[in-house]
Amino acid sequence: MTERKIILGMALTDGYGTLPGAWRAPNVDPTNYAKVEANIRYAQAAERGGFSFVFTPDFPAVRGGLESGTVSNIMDPLMEAAVISQATRNIGFVLTGSTTFQEPFNTARQFKTLDIMSHGRAGWNAVTTSDQLVAANYGKPVADRAERYQRAHESIQIVQSLWGSWEKDAWIHDQESGRFLDTSKLQPVNLGGEHVASRGPLALPPSEQGQPVVFTSGGPSPHLLEIAGRYASGFITEVWTIDEARASRAALRRAAEAAGRNPDDVKFIVGILTTVTPTVREGLDRRMSMSGEVIEARLPHLGAMIGVPIQPQHIDTPLTTEQLAIAHANPQDPRSEIALEVAREGWSPRDILAHGVIDYHPVTVGPGSVHADHMQEWFEAGAADGFWMSPDVYEDGVDAFVDEVVPILRERGLYPEEYVGSTLRENLGVPEQYGLGEWMK
Amino acid sequence: MTERKIILGMALTDGYGTLPGAWRAPNVDPTNYAKVEANIRYAQAAERGGFSFVFTPDFPAVRGGLESGTVSNIMDPLMEAAVISQATRNIGFVLTGSTTFQEPFNTARQFKTLDIMSHGRAGWNAVTTSDQLVAANYGKPVADRAERYQRAHESIQIVQSLWGSWEKDAWIHDQESGRFLDTSKLQPVNLGGEHVASRGPLALPPSEQGQPVVFTSGGPSPHLLEIAGRYASGFITEVWTIDEARASRAALRRAAEAAGRNPDDVKFIVGILTTVTPTVREGLDRRMSMSGEVIEARLPHLGAMIGVPIQPQHIDTPLTTEQLAIAHANPQDPRSEIALEVAREGWSPRDILAHGVIDYHPVTVGPGSVHADHMQEWFEAGAADGFWMSPDVYEDGVDAFVDEVVPILRERGLYPEEYVGSTLRENLGVPEQYGLGEWMK
Repeated sequence: MTERKIILGMALTDGYGTLPGAWRAPNVDPTNYAKVEANIRYAQAAERGGFSFVFTPDFPAVRGGLESGTVSNIMDPLMEAAVISQATRNIGFVLTGSTTFQEPFNTARQFKTLDIMSHGRAGWNAVTTSDQLVAANYGKPVADRAERYQRAHESIQIVQSLWGSWEKDAWIHDQESGRFLDTSKLQPVNLGGEHVASRGPLALPPSEQGQPVVFTSGGPSPHLLEIAGRYASGFITEVWTIDEARASRAALRRAAEAAGRNPDDVKFIVGILTTVTPTVREGLDRRMSMSGEVIEARLPHLGAMIGVPIQPQHIDTPLTTEQLAIAHANPQDPRSEIALEVAREGWSPRDILAHGVIDYHPVTVGPGSVHADHMQEWFEAGAADGFWMSPDVYEDGVDAFVDEVVPILRERGLYPEEYVGSTLRENLGVPEQYGLGEWMK
Repeated sequence: MTERKIILGMALTDGYGTLPGAWRAPNVDPTNYAKVEANIRYAQAAERGGFSFVFTPDFPAVRGGLESGTVSNIMDPLMEAAVISQATRNIGFVLTGSTTFQEPFNTARQFKTLDIMSHGRAGWNAVTTSDQLVAANYGKPVADRAERYQRAHESIQIVQSLWGSWEKDAWIHDQESGRFLDTSKLQPVNLGGEHVASRGPLALPPSEQGQPVVFTSGGPSPHLLEIAGRYASGFITEVWTIDEARASRAALRRAAEAAGRNPDDVKFIVGILTTVTPTVREGLDRRMSMSGEVIEARLPHLGAMIGVPIQPQHIDTPLTTEQLAIAHANPQDPRSEIALEVAREGWSPRDILAHGVIDYHPVTVGPGSVHADHMQEWFEAGAADGFWMSPDVYEDGVDAFVDEVVPILRERGLYPEEYVGSTLRENLGVPEQYGLGEWMK
């Protein structure tokens, strides 16, 4: 039994970074969005740091705010990953693909092709889509939840069956005898559900890891946990506190057990937004310089979170003893506790906001030890099996993380010294799979 | 006005070649099908020969005959092209994508991503799909022709509109002022038809050629010619004789004119299967050595084509004067004329069949001049604007063509000395396009 280690992943999106002004940073090419070369560089940097995978969220529609913001999405997950796979050797690719708007046969084919091209490094983040803008791009209404999840189950089962439809030892390719395939081992799947169906087989051989790894992502709703428990080897989520994370991870593990699986085979991966700088002060300044008007605009929200109204003219004044005495975390928003904690450290409201207390994930700012401490605490508390990090600015933020954070995690024995293997399954520590998972057998 | 020159394309499929035994050739890796590296090598060889494009036919289902044959299909056109685009600089990618089973939004997104990644070298071969095996992989019945073509029109219009939905000068990305996009130039398309619809916009900027080039392929049916006449810049076809080809090309040009377009903007590209060897005799031997039992099996068919029954024991005996006197080409099969012509040259039935007279396209066998003569004759007769060649064996057949045939075409002034430009449009000689084509404006 190998010792449990932290798994690291990194988001790949539009090539800039999580800060709104990342695309304007002087060392950043503002046309990175259209340059796969940029994402190649960032994936290579993450690979240098031993990351198990890059993760591409996907929102195939145009969000607002593009006048000064960016597209916040990758051009296309599969097309970019195909290219990046040829410029890397060990890092995996966990790519979001909708079960609601993609045909299972296409999903099966393109992900398996990536798995073959990358020598066993592909993963499919199978999600449902309920966004109206996305649905409209496919000319469809938003389906209700029951329908979406029904289709998700059908899609994943068809995709996994297609992946297994070319059996392990089907491909003979013996030049001497002239036998190319044992066609008895290339069998149709003939699966049909209420929403999707496919005959198969898929004309693609096994990869070095058998077939792509299934992930899913989102909040721990019963519907999603059932998907994750049955099919997924990884669950990508956003969560703010250790308590919440422990509860979600426990629910995920119960869902896997309910499906007859070993709960250790489903990895719970939480988000983290990083700014790596020699000191916390430098990190806050870096974040402020690239946040535009976001900081000021969030001041009333911060006041509501900690129960203390803050006037704009006091944005640079740390809270008084009196204010701190009446301050209390809003129980509706788990981020409030973190905001309050930062306030008690004596930071001004501007600095509290620069800490990223109102963001999509926990934000860690400062020297390597800050990030390592955060991950160690969560990991050892059973709140996470790993982290998917998003740097403030990709151009230098990935290298900074690899150079400053990874060595500390290794010193502490929390992170592998090198890649365990060359496939995504090996580096995640999840078993080989071929065709449908255990729960169906 | 530049002089008209031959356009060359090359098929990319499973990495072996058109002869059934190509995968067994001693210099061929029998696992090429799963190795994108092989297709990279072949595309690079074609690029060395100044080819305008590689073309991926696509049949997303499993054909019969895999016991001793091969898959006869590329793993996935878009995924392989993404990779190959990064290992080449000038050659274009004309990839088959079904309008029947693909969502227009996905087609628009993935082809435009390829167009951006390749710096303006993507083309979409937009086809309809009526094959039952393919339909079954998508869990759908085969739609009737009217429905398929209605959906094709809708799909192509949506895709082209999405491609134009991010206007040319929309992307400001000015770091100083902080203006990323002029959002007034990123507009929804809001197109809805009977079968498909999309809101848009597509969040992808123009490529160096504006947007991907549309091709279509098949026989010259009125339905397909209407598609080609309106939308296509290239028409890929299989045709056996100059007369047929001239008629089809003329029909294509009329269809373009009927849509208000310049007929020179739609290139008529015919197939050719090549075996390049120092002598014809060596070429026939090479073909026979990799044809398995196909030659013998086709003997009765050959007899029917030329109106002379041939007994198996006479397979190596050239036709007698008496036989030749009664021989006549079967008017139902345009290949019969070619078979008869080869018979009159004095070849034995085995050699006639080794000439490939019963194959998917005209076959040219022998030294460079044989291939060059064939192309020159067709080109000068107005039977083709270009050729898409498929080598007998990729591993050495592409290089042989580039080394032996291309120089002769250049000597004769029929073929460009170098790439005209770096985009597919430039190398095809078709105008820039953005959004829907001329006929809609």
